[in-house]
Amino acid sequence: MNVLFIMADQLRWDHLGCSGHPYLQTPHIDALAARGVRFANAFVNSGVCGPSRMSHYTGRYPISHGATWNRVPLSVGEVTLGEMLKGSGRSLALAGKTHVMADREGLARLQLEGGSELATLLQRGGFEEIDRYDGHHPPGSESGYAAYLRAQGYAGDDPWSEHVISGVDAQGQVQSGWHMRNVHLPARVAESHSETAFMTDQALQYMQRMGSQPWVLHLSYVKPHWPYMAPAPYHAMYSAAQCLPVQRTLQELDTAHPVLAAYRQQEECRSFQRDECIRTVRPAYQGLISQLDHHLGRLFEYLEKSGLAKDTLVIFTADHGDFLGDHWLGEKELFYDTVQKVPFIVVDPRPEAHATRGQVRDEFVEAVDVVPTVLETLGLPLPQHRLEGRSLLPLLHRAEAPSNWRSFAYSELDYSYREARLRLGKDVQQCRAFSLRSAQWRYVYWLDEPEQLFDLNADPDCFQDLGRDTSTAGVRAELRHQLLDFLARRKHRTTVSEAAVAQGTAAHKRAGVFFGQW
Amino acid sequence: MNVLFIMADQLRWDHLGCSGHPYLQTPHIDALAARGVRFANAFVNSGVCGPSRMSHYTGRYPISHGATWNRVPLSVGEVTLGEMLKGSGRSLALAGKTHVMADREGLARLQLEGGSELATLLQRGGFEEIDRYDGHHPPGSESGYAAYLRAQGYAGDDPWSEHVISGVDAQGQVQSGWHMRNVHLPARVAESHSETAFMTDQALQYMQRMGSQPWVLHLSYVKPHWPYMAPAPYHAMYSAAQCLPVQRTLQELDTAHPVLAAYRQQEECRSFQRDECIRTVRPAYQGLISQLDHHLGRLFEYLEKSGLAKDTLVIFTADHGDFLGDHWLGEKELFYDTVQKVPFIVVDPRPEAHATRGQVRDEFVEAVDVVPTVLETLGLPLPQHRLEGRSLLPLLHRAEAPSNWRSFAYSELDYSYREARLRLGKDVQQCRAFSLRSAQWRYVYWLDEPEQLFDLNADPDCFQDLGRDTSTAGVRAELRHQLLDFLARRKHRTTVSEAAVAQGTAAHKRAGVFFGQW
Repeated sequence: MNVLFIMADQLRWDHLGCSGHPYLQTPHIDALAARGVRFANAFVNSGVCGPSRMSHYTGRYPISHGATWNRVPLSVGEVTLGEMLKGSGRSLALAGKTHVMADREGLARLQLEGGSELATLLQRGGFEEIDRYDGHHPPGSESGYAAYLRAQGYAGDDPWSEHVISGVDAQGQVQSGWHMRNVHLPARVAESHSETAFMTDQALQYMQRMGSQPWVLHLSYVKPHWPYMAPAPYHAMYSAAQCLPVQRTLQELDTAHPVLAAYRQQEECRSFQRDECIRTVRPAYQGLISQLDHHLGRLFEYLEKSGLAKDTLVIFTADHGDFLGDHWLGEKELFYDTVQKVPFIVVDPRPEAHATRGQVRDEFVEAVDVVPTVLETLGLPLPQHRLEGRSLLPLLHRAEAPSNWRSFAYSELDYSYREARLRLGKDVQQCRAFSLRSAQWRYVYWLDEPEQLFDLNADPDCFQDLGRDTSTAGVRAELRHQLLDFLARRKHRTTVSEAAVAQGTAAHKRAGVFFGQW
Repeated sequence: MNVLFIMADQLRWDHLGCSGHPYLQTPHIDALAARGVRFANAFVNSGVCGPSRMSHYTGRYPISHGATWNRVPLSVGEVTLGEMLKGSGRSLALAGKTHVMADREGLARLQLEGGSELATLLQRGGFEEIDRYDGHHPPGSESGYAAYLRAQGYAGDDPWSEHVISGVDAQGQVQSGWHMRNVHLPARVAESHSETAFMTDQALQYMQRMGSQPWVLHLSYVKPHWPYMAPAPYHAMYSAAQCLPVQRTLQELDTAHPVLAAYRQQEECRSFQRDECIRTVRPAYQGLISQLDHHLGRLFEYLEKSGLAKDTLVIFTADHGDFLGDHWLGEKELFYDTVQKVPFIVVDPRPEAHATRGQVRDEFVEAVDVVPTVLETLGLPLPQHRLEGRSLLPLLHRAEAPSNWRSFAYSELDYSYREARLRLGKDVQQCRAFSLRSAQWRYVYWLDEPEQLFDLNADPDCFQDLGRDTSTAGVRAELRHQLLDFLARRKHRTTVSEAAVAQGTAAHKRAGVFFGQW
């Protein structure tokens, strides 16, 4: 079996045709869902790239893997999917973004600097890089994209800034997509030379090179993440009227939670509080998604035509969503489904999965489930003493979910690096929140701040925060208890396997220790 | 400054003259307390050797360092006091026990096998071993004790088993101290050749060798831990009548918590439920303590006479206590002060500490406080992004405690390796408990089992478990909340310093990322 693990960056769950968007066209993603299972309650374990992705790559929650924010290095003590595959004689190829930061201090401490194969693998989070490109920066030396752009005739020191995320206004002036007011313009790059096209090409070339050799590929797009600059014709594919209505009420501002109030002072939120920003960005964002869908179509066509499809497990998901003005917020991070819920489609081509093709399933699925799903698909051992997710194969192979399937999704946030910390006068250990999302409740526990609580039955759009409402004290106490129980079960005993613990139980006499004998 | 960090193994807080034992003689420890501060509310962070010691050596709680039970390796990702000292050009010498298990899988994963200086340091938990001896096994190759015994004329393949923990009964038969019925006999070793004497000699020789060079020494005795065999004259120093009364009530058995009921079926508890076991063991245990005190007297005398005392911070504590039949239990682990509260004496010889000499302080002190105290004493940087304890210097230098000093002590237990797990039919991830001990309450949260709660005001001996009492539901909910908050604050973001986070706050534009600009 091969595995193709595709990630989109900052793609909202509700921005797909198959999830009900009335205008957005994503025919190839919809067809993918029809061939497999679409999980309608799939959640990330943190609403921001770095920690979310590290959960995808380790099978562990942020509180366990410790990379709680973008650019917080993943500890050398953590074991990634790539390393697990390596241990079984396979490897994990990468085309695109990971957001993995090398743990340089940890590597130096263990004298693992320099270019050994092991040091390189650890620096890269276990990936073998075909082309690594994290996006929203000029492509660095790990990527061929800058050279590719130059070869296509995009001149300049920084063709990415000057072409890929820039446009030309009516006055003939070059304008940067870093200013969202400009993202109605087409990017100064041909669609076929865009980030999404380039990375799809990398993946296709890799599959061609591999021929009949098995592979596991993480194809990780940097779009529809900002800068929201879409190339023609996608920049103009949707009008503002063809976007989802903005989800926000004035009551939300009147009764704002202190941390949300601080967030809403940040530049990205202030911008998205302007209607013109929403009307400008949302069509471009949708265009980027349709563009992505187009390239996924190329990819899926290749899988079919090459015959690879019948031996390839495909996972398609995103690292988090994007507020785009909902709840008076821009960007991501906070605990609304807008950001925390993501597309999650899995196609298992094997006959065992025929029973579930085309299903939309409601079980709670999380980012941490990717690693165990990949390992089980490949018939490899699952390091259960580390893994906190569960393989999704039971949900792909049987109509009935296991009776002990999880009843909530978990997510957390470390906002120490955010301006909101300064506004609230907090120190760098105080800026944490922990959230449970069950069928009925969205609950958030904030250090040193009030709780948040939304009743999804009565208020599916989460406009009314009941976290400081005395009438919900009982529910909140129950959810606190659930959260305590969840945190108390994290897998911090990582140096011994479960089998070794079982074998070592009550084994002291076998080890020559005879305490307690009268 | 030098640091002498002395640990006794399995020494109850109430088994010292200075803590009020009416018969037990510990004049040298009492004199130590008179020269410094005795902390009357000092607690370990787990009531069993391995996890407790790893908290002393890392400054982190078991849930953070991950070595949750004896012989669970300390992850190569954890940084120990010895390594911190090494990073500052100093080292941490060891004479005696650590219970550190090398993380062989972790080291192999990082290609750190073999005998490099780094690999050796990591395998040994950061210690430079003068003589490592973990006790309750025949001494291995890391210790010179077996060779020493042979040189003193103790013959046989295993002089430790045959002499140090054996005695000769009235019929002239050699009897093993592994059977507690025999510990009224004197050990078949001269007192001056005993484990306690030998390890004191190692420490004295080390200090002599070091001369005027500064040092940090962990002198870690294996006694009064079982086997409870004391050499003459200490085996007969106390009568059963000179021991503390047994703390147990029949009501405890009638209303036993399920996990405690399972523990009480284990051999060591069944043995200690016999009065003859208590009457036999307690006098020997007290003898071992008086013997330890005698050798500490030799050590303190050397410090004084050599002039080292004025430049040496001395910490004296233990890794946990011993039930000795209290609460119908033997051994340790569970959440009673009998086991969780430990002796904790600190002498800071510097003038700044004159104000507190001879004080008995009531602030909650924990095992995790050792590392920050040592580092601050030596003027070395404190890695606050890892350290979960606090330096005790403020309590040594000022009469007033900092206003934000902790209001409870925390401890946890992983009983996966214990027979109780099998009796209760649990898997190896389910056997955990988490406890808070405040001035009024002893609270225990057990996974999948009822809570425990004791009101120390009304019931200082903890005979009446209110954990399943409906009248305490409100108190328990409040303590659950406190425990949740405590777990939510653990330091899992270990790869970036606090300064780096502060510098990185709201710094995206400096890094060339301009999201959110209209």
